[in-house]
Amino acid sequence: MGTRFSGSFLAVDWGTTNRRVFVIEDGRVAHTERDGKGVTAVTDFAAEAAGIRARHGDLPLLMAGMVGANIGWAPAPYVAAPAGIAELAAGLLWVEERSAIVPGVSTRVSGRPDVMRGEEVQLLGAVRAGLAPADALLVQPGTHCKWVEMVDGRIADFTTAMTGELFALLRSHGLLAAQLGGEVHVGPAFHAGVEEGRKRDLAAALFGIRAAKMLGVRDDADAAAFASGLLIGSDVAVRLEHAGHDTVHILADPMLGGLYAAAIAAHGRQAVIASSHDAFVAGILALAEQIA
Amino acid sequence: MGTRFSGSFLAVDWGTTNRRVFVIEDGRVAHTERDGKGVTAVTDFAAEAAGIRARHGDLPLLMAGMVGANIGWAPAPYVAAPAGIAELAAGLLWVEERSAIVPGVSTRVSGRPDVMRGEEVQLLGAVRAGLAPADALLVQPGTHCKWVEMVDGRIADFTTAMTGELFALLRSHGLLAAQLGGEVHVGPAFHAGVEEGRKRDLAAALFGIRAAKMLGVRDDADAAAFASGLLIGSDVAVRLEHAGHDTVHILADPMLGGLYAAAIAAHGRQAVIASSHDAFVAGILALAEQIA
Repeated sequence: MGTRFSGSFLAVDWGTTNRRVFVIEDGRVAHTERDGKGVTAVTDFAAEAAGIRARHGDLPLLMAGMVGANIGWAPAPYVAAPAGIAELAAGLLWVEERSAIVPGVSTRVSGRPDVMRGEEVQLLGAVRAGLAPADALLVQPGTHCKWVEMVDGRIADFTTAMTGELFALLRSHGLLAAQLGGEVHVGPAFHAGVEEGRKRDLAAALFGIRAAKMLGVRDDADAAAFASGLLIGSDVAVRLEHAGHDTVHILADPMLGGLYAAAIAAHGRQAVIASSHDAFVAGILALAEQIA
Repeated sequence: MGTRFSGSFLAVDWGTTNRRVFVIEDGRVAHTERDGKGVTAVTDFAAEAAGIRARHGDLPLLMAGMVGANIGWAPAPYVAAPAGIAELAAGLLWVEERSAIVPGVSTRVSGRPDVMRGEEVQLLGAVRAGLAPADALLVQPGTHCKWVEMVDGRIADFTTAMTGELFALLRSHGLLAAQLGGEVHVGPAFHAGVEEGRKRDLAAALFGIRAAKMLGVRDDADAAAFASGLLIGSDVAVRLEHAGHDTVHILADPMLGGLYAAAIAAHGRQAVIASSHDAFVAGILALAEQIA
């Protein structure tokens, strides 16, 4: 397919529950649109693409994220790590003459096999934009937190932890749900959770939240912050155990990024937060340049 | 209150969702009744007690379990570990002239504070009945799995892991629910999960179940057995790390007990399964004797 993304095009960061459209003009973001039309809210993807073009211009469309999952427009492949911009560009899935989906990345480099879809654009963009060095440990906190080893500006290997999902499950269902409605912020309870996380004994530490309530040893208003510290802290403890980097680069919004930064600092490493939004834009521009 | 449980009485193992009544005549179980009238299904406990007496005889009533929680008949105290039959008997909560609730047990002996309610009768009964030695490591698998250090036939210290609850949460909600409907039995997938559990990295290992599906590296019919092995295996790995016992005594039904036995054996310890039902009867008889 001969379509090229030079100069002006439409980029879509299309996730499970949210969607963000970037209108790119002359290699810069001219306008963005964000809505709740994630892939689970969409059935006719071609009609959605037509709608995006009707609103923002009849331009080529470059999409990334869950739009390429089996619950999305069409299943895009996983490119095997190590992978950089060139490998992603070569693995594009064309779903229309002028519409392409960025592939995901898989790893079987070390440890357990793993997959990502959507994060790869941010990761490669972060290095391209100078938000992180070419050789670095990056973390993308969230429902499924990605820990990524970048080497020479490429995705060398990575691990996903369902830290955010576990917190959401515990907050919505089961024994602890009634205790975990409180606000989460960095403070003594969060840090106590981070310390407990060092023991890497989640199942018992979680029951400890209940026992602390029954025995009155912790103010229950602090339970959510403690649980968040525990989950993030055990994630950080495992990941930093053998990590050779003094600095961890976090791609996240300031709130969630701040929680990870606090846990990383408690483990004696430096944490640097960069904007995941800026990283995505840089990555999609680098991809467009490669294809053009 | 002068009521004594000598000779004949009614014992009730009154849990969250189930209830079992034991009719004790001359120190032996003459009859049992099991139903779904756990504490969450009951509002008028005095009426339930009257119903039990109407069906089984106008006898003293000795109750244990969640009936003594704040969602039960009345909140019974926690007796501090180390605790044996004498401490439990001294801590009975009388809710009627001839009806008493066995207290729970709390620990602040080492590690995190913890609580139990209902398990204490089984534990002390297991030793009294010779189902386990007076100095032993006992485990009671379930929604909230108890690991208990018995010293001189008394509850010296214990840890609760919400292993069973985590499995139930993951099976009913979230990313992995659709994969975890399969049967769980001891086999290669369960053992692979136990091995993964040694890494004590639950949040990442759980996402690995998803990745294995996406990359086709494990038959998805095996996902539930793997997840069970992972959760039980990490529980066993943490608990046996510093445990000095060559043998672990399991109080459970054969199915769940068999899963724990397999994981314990994989960690090089011997596992012995004893009937939790027999242990409860022995414990409640020992208590009745102490009170009489």
